[in-house]
Amino acid sequence: MEGIVQSVINFSEGRDEKVIEKIVEQVRSIPGAKLLDYSYDYDHNRSVVTFIGSPEAVVEAAFNLTSKAAELIDMEKHHGGHPRMGATDVIPFVPISGITMDDCVELAQRLGRRIGDELEIPVFLYGEAASSPGRKNLAALRKGEFEGLKEAIKTPGREPDHGPGEMHPSAGATAVGARKPLVAYNVNLHSDDLQVARNIANAVREKKGGLKNVKAIGLKLEDRNQVQVSMNLVDCESTPIYRVFDLIKAEARRYGVSIAESEIIGLSPQEYLIDAACHYLQLNNFTNQQIIENRVFFEDGEEG
Amino acid sequence: MEGIVQSVINFSEGRDEKVIEKIVEQVRSIPGAKLLDYSYDYDHNRSVVTFIGSPEAVVEAAFNLTSKAAELIDMEKHHGGHPRMGATDVIPFVPISGITMDDCVELAQRLGRRIGDELEIPVFLYGEAASSPGRKNLAALRKGEFEGLKEAIKTPGREPDHGPGEMHPSAGATAVGARKPLVAYNVNLHSDDLQVARNIANAVREKKGGLKNVKAIGLKLEDRNQVQVSMNLVDCESTPIYRVFDLIKAEARRYGVSIAESEIIGLSPQEYLIDAACHYLQLNNFTNQQIIENRVFFEDGEEG
Repeated sequence: MEGIVQSVINFSEGRDEKVIEKIVEQVRSIPGAKLLDYSYDYDHNRSVVTFIGSPEAVVEAAFNLTSKAAELIDMEKHHGGHPRMGATDVIPFVPISGITMDDCVELAQRLGRRIGDELEIPVFLYGEAASSPGRKNLAALRKGEFEGLKEAIKTPGREPDHGPGEMHPSAGATAVGARKPLVAYNVNLHSDDLQVARNIANAVREKKGGLKNVKAIGLKLEDRNQVQVSMNLVDCESTPIYRVFDLIKAEARRYGVSIAESEIIGLSPQEYLIDAACHYLQLNNFTNQQIIENRVFFEDGEEG
Repeated sequence: MEGIVQSVINFSEGRDEKVIEKIVEQVRSIPGAKLLDYSYDYDHNRSVVTFIGSPEAVVEAAFNLTSKAAELIDMEKHHGGHPRMGATDVIPFVPISGITMDDCVELAQRLGRRIGDELEIPVFLYGEAASSPGRKNLAALRKGEFEGLKEAIKTPGREPDHGPGEMHPSAGATAVGARKPLVAYNVNLHSDDLQVARNIANAVREKKGGLKNVKAIGLKLEDRNQVQVSMNLVDCESTPIYRVFDLIKAEARRYGVSIAESEIIGLSPQEYLIDAACHYLQLNNFTNQQIIENRVFFEDGEEG
């Protein structure tokens, strides 16, 4: 398997920096895996680690991280504000470049089996890797959390996909899955009227009848005297950034408000930006291989 | 020196495929250099080879190609429709990613010196690497071609920058330089009126008072019943693709004509497409490092 895959692992330690460092070190020490970012939160008592690399390297790093977290974290002693069921709580695989969602599902199954067999931690497959439609949703799988799942995991329909049929005494259970890249996208408006931002957020968000795959809220940026439509775009292939931008522009016009600027928070795959360029420039036949940089690294499968 | 550099070498053989293959092989055989494309033309009796890679690899490939061309091509026997002064006629270095124009000038000087010293071929530095403003223009440097330069090269002001003060008896002289990437960009119009395309081409091209760095002509696409504004954009940093597109759109409106589509012929650096996305989405603070793929290859100088 070739290409670049991303993982964004959540583990249940957000306070003890020594423990956090030892766990994150598992990613750093794998050649071919590249740590992009990690952050931790005291109140949530939880860390988030983002890394990318070849499929083999990312799976290896994810396994080693899970193994180290199981060694160092005791869920019996864990308290925190964020719902959680295991020492390593969630492991998604995200296709970035030269790799399909099916590949990522296969990686999730492979890692899930290994965590179940070798670490004896029960694994639930979620997202695109879910074994049934009802298991796609992470929150539903995690219902009851570490404490409640000790019993719940034994009830029909809640059996894990891999590993033992009961919770690991200290490491709990882990969700392993596959999903599309998530883009955090904000649009700032030339207005200080919070109600305008909220109305526009409601107009574009899926829940209220707007665009599919868009989660949106209205916020006030006190220091800038502007309001913002703050969004998570969960499927930019189906619902591209430019469509969201254009709809917000059209909705804002209704209030005589124009767009000050937009921003992508954190990372985006190259493709989503190129899609916008092709849309506005009416470039109908442009392919990824016309980007010089892509020819260096992605041709002939020379790079994993 | 790090980053990716491109070269687009023109050499003076476009008929004998065995000779052409032996010369192109010099690029293929260098690890770290990647042959992207080569083409040859019987009438011009000339080949164009495009390749990219690390600075060291691209310089090495360019030197080996020049050496092999000097061995296999005799300019005394060369005839062709395209102006030329040497077996290897032109070697530009083009900054693609993670490398500056100053770096490319340095590469041109380094290669120029080596070709002059080791192959005893006189070298003229041109483009951004030119030793004086009057030497930037390739056509001016090449004036007189192989035959005329035998005498002209000895006249004051026309001395080569490197190598002997006279033409190599069989390999002539070579121009080595640095320039920005060139983008071949066309805009197709919902019109079959060639005059409209010509008027718009005149409105956008630098020569007629339009946009700097834009060369444009109007063409008819007989099979599509459309007309086209066909362009070369020689500096998309100063004069970006989206500005050219928007100006054509505005000029076309004057004739009640809309844009059918646009197209990039061949390759473009990633940056020029990202620039368009940022322009239309009003992404004011987006950086290259927010593209996930770029984090794999270009951080920490891990890749040349």
